[in-house]
Amino acid sequence: MDVVSFARGVPAPECLAVEELADCAHAALERDGRSILSYGPGGGYGPLREWIAARHGVEPSRVVLTSGSLQGFVFLAEQLVTPGSRVLVEAPTYDRPLKILRRLGAEIVSLPMDDDGLQPDAFEEALASGPKPAFLYTIATFQNPSGRTLSAERRRRVVEIARAHELFVLEDDPYGLVRYEGDSPATLFELEGGVNVAYASSFSKTIAPGVRVGYFVLPADLAAKTEALAVSTYISPPFLAQATVHEFLRRGNFEPNVERVTGLLRVRRDAMLEALERHAPAEAEWSRPEGGYFVWVDLPREAPPLAAAEAAGVTFVPGKDFFADGSGGHSMRLAFSFVSPDEIAEGVARLAPLLAGAVAPAPAV
Amino acid sequence: MDVVSFARGVPAPECLAVEELADCAHAALERDGRSILSYGPGGGYGPLREWIAARHGVEPSRVVLTSGSLQGFVFLAEQLVTPGSRVLVEAPTYDRPLKILRRLGAEIVSLPMDDDGLQPDAFEEALASGPKPAFLYTIATFQNPSGRTLSAERRRRVVEIARAHELFVLEDDPYGLVRYEGDSPATLFELEGGVNVAYASSFSKTIAPGVRVGYFVLPADLAAKTEALAVSTYISPPFLAQATVHEFLRRGNFEPNVERVTGLLRVRRDAMLEALERHAPAEAEWSRPEGGYFVWVDLPREAPPLAAAEAAGVTFVPGKDFFADGSGGHSMRLAFSFVSPDEIAEGVARLAPLLAGAVAPAPAV
Repeated sequence: MDVVSFARGVPAPECLAVEELADCAHAALERDGRSILSYGPGGGYGPLREWIAARHGVEPSRVVLTSGSLQGFVFLAEQLVTPGSRVLVEAPTYDRPLKILRRLGAEIVSLPMDDDGLQPDAFEEALASGPKPAFLYTIATFQNPSGRTLSAERRRRVVEIARAHELFVLEDDPYGLVRYEGDSPATLFELEGGVNVAYASSFSKTIAPGVRVGYFVLPADLAAKTEALAVSTYISPPFLAQATVHEFLRRGNFEPNVERVTGLLRVRRDAMLEALERHAPAEAEWSRPEGGYFVWVDLPREAPPLAAAEAAGVTFVPGKDFFADGSGGHSMRLAFSFVSPDEIAEGVARLAPLLAGAVAPAPAV
Repeated sequence: MDVVSFARGVPAPECLAVEELADCAHAALERDGRSILSYGPGGGYGPLREWIAARHGVEPSRVVLTSGSLQGFVFLAEQLVTPGSRVLVEAPTYDRPLKILRRLGAEIVSLPMDDDGLQPDAFEEALASGPKPAFLYTIATFQNPSGRTLSAERRRRVVEIARAHELFVLEDDPYGLVRYEGDSPATLFELEGGVNVAYASSFSKTIAPGVRVGYFVLPADLAAKTEALAVSTYISPPFLAQATVHEFLRRGNFEPNVERVTGLLRVRRDAMLEALERHAPAEAEWSRPEGGYFVWVDLPREAPPLAAAEAAGVTFVPGKDFFADGSGGHSMRLAFSFVSPDEIAEGVARLAPLLAGAVAPAPAV
């Protein structure tokens, strides 16, 4: 068996409905080729904006489609952040936004989490202890990297606090529909009504990451400004992938595909949790996500060096990549989405001696 | 006849090979769907980078594909420009880069042009009269907005000057292949060898603008940094459109399609020049482009207000949009690419009284 990658937070290849998407691309161009192949609205392909708007109960002009949601995060951050702006994030959080915020000169304020997600008391304290932050960035459901979900009670508190402080909240929710068990709590966006809370998601986990169709549901003025920034950056986005996604949706493929993908990934989540139960040392702790791609492992000692893991035939992402403050050295993110259940079992078995502290020397090169 | 748009610098709808591109999208996904639908290199779809690299005689790693070439301009400008940096541009020049440079706080230095393109003496003077500029931005062939082409002799001088000053030059060449007559001069990139000169182009004018496939041929270090910036912004670009373009190319469609598109647009260029000969006032002057999308009209008085033109049933882009220094009030950009030859004749006839100074009052609203 090759190196087992717990590093890649991407869907397993069999999650991709290649044949159907090939048909959808063809059909979309047949039906609406002259629009798709021309310049158009900077905020994205009209019919897809309308589909998303209806789903979230807003006007289509409040929906902005971007080439993956990270591109939209850049657009928002460029508008909201000036050097020195405070931005609140969960600790740990998705590493790419951290890099973008650093590049823009933001002061990143880390809010601690536990198994129920970010701690509202810490959120309130952060608001009380300095200038008003530009925004809070949260992945409330099946968080990257921790796999944790903000509890329903905490969601209400986070919304109350955001309202009281009129703080802008960006709720990033790419994983919410990839649920293996349990009921979905209301999103922050739904609880709050979309005044202070903006909602971001994408079709990366429900259709395919390569389509690069992210979307944002924004307050009207911010949507207009974001669309203007998109026009100034790339005139209009590539409509072909957006129209292909729309064709996939209008054929009624979305819900069945989410169910199919969820089935393929549930067995991987199960394999990961089972393998950790079997192989992890007694003193290790890990999250038990009800959905998404990731398990977060906390160790009582330094996580094994990546080179040692690679030498043992397995990779992961070190926990410290997901903290703004250099902590996380005892933690690891294990993605179970890409590899097969058998590979997961084998990969965790390979990791086990390293987790127990028996770090093998890296081989000579 | 509806309002005639000389404002839209886009290909006429019949230029778009919709059916063939629908087949290409389908075939690309059938052959390479799992790559196309996943994350991949931030610099773009491998086979297309290889095709472009071979065409320009460079390593594929020096080619970076972006969502339209404006996105790549943003990436380059973000790396090269800090507030106060001098950037040399042609006057007039494409308005979108001017806006991006302003947003980044650049000091824009305008180089005057005549019928042979930018004036090398002015280029040398600008270099002698202040701190070293970050770069020169030039559209040397069938320039947007003027339709002018830098002469072969001036190309050699511009390259000599850039070499002597080790000045970075960005040659933007989206229109070069859309040539109606005459021979193509060597590009600055070819003359210089790609050390100081970077080359940008796209498939917007040769296949379709909606595919949003721009590309840059860069010095190796700048290519690597630009690719890293792309990864930090959108992880990887939408491969579907890039793979569709690649399929179109590998089927041998490119040269025949360029010939077909050129044929469709040549009659529009001819119609525009003929209509101007017939209708324009004696004191007006205009460019006679051998290719591209635009004719530039200089008047001995203020150009007509856009509202008056719209009231007369025709639109254009005012010349002042293409200058950094507020000049251009006597000039207009007329795009002949989008409308039919009959519409062009009618549109110029509608413009004629306004060009002669007989501005009709705008209708009451």
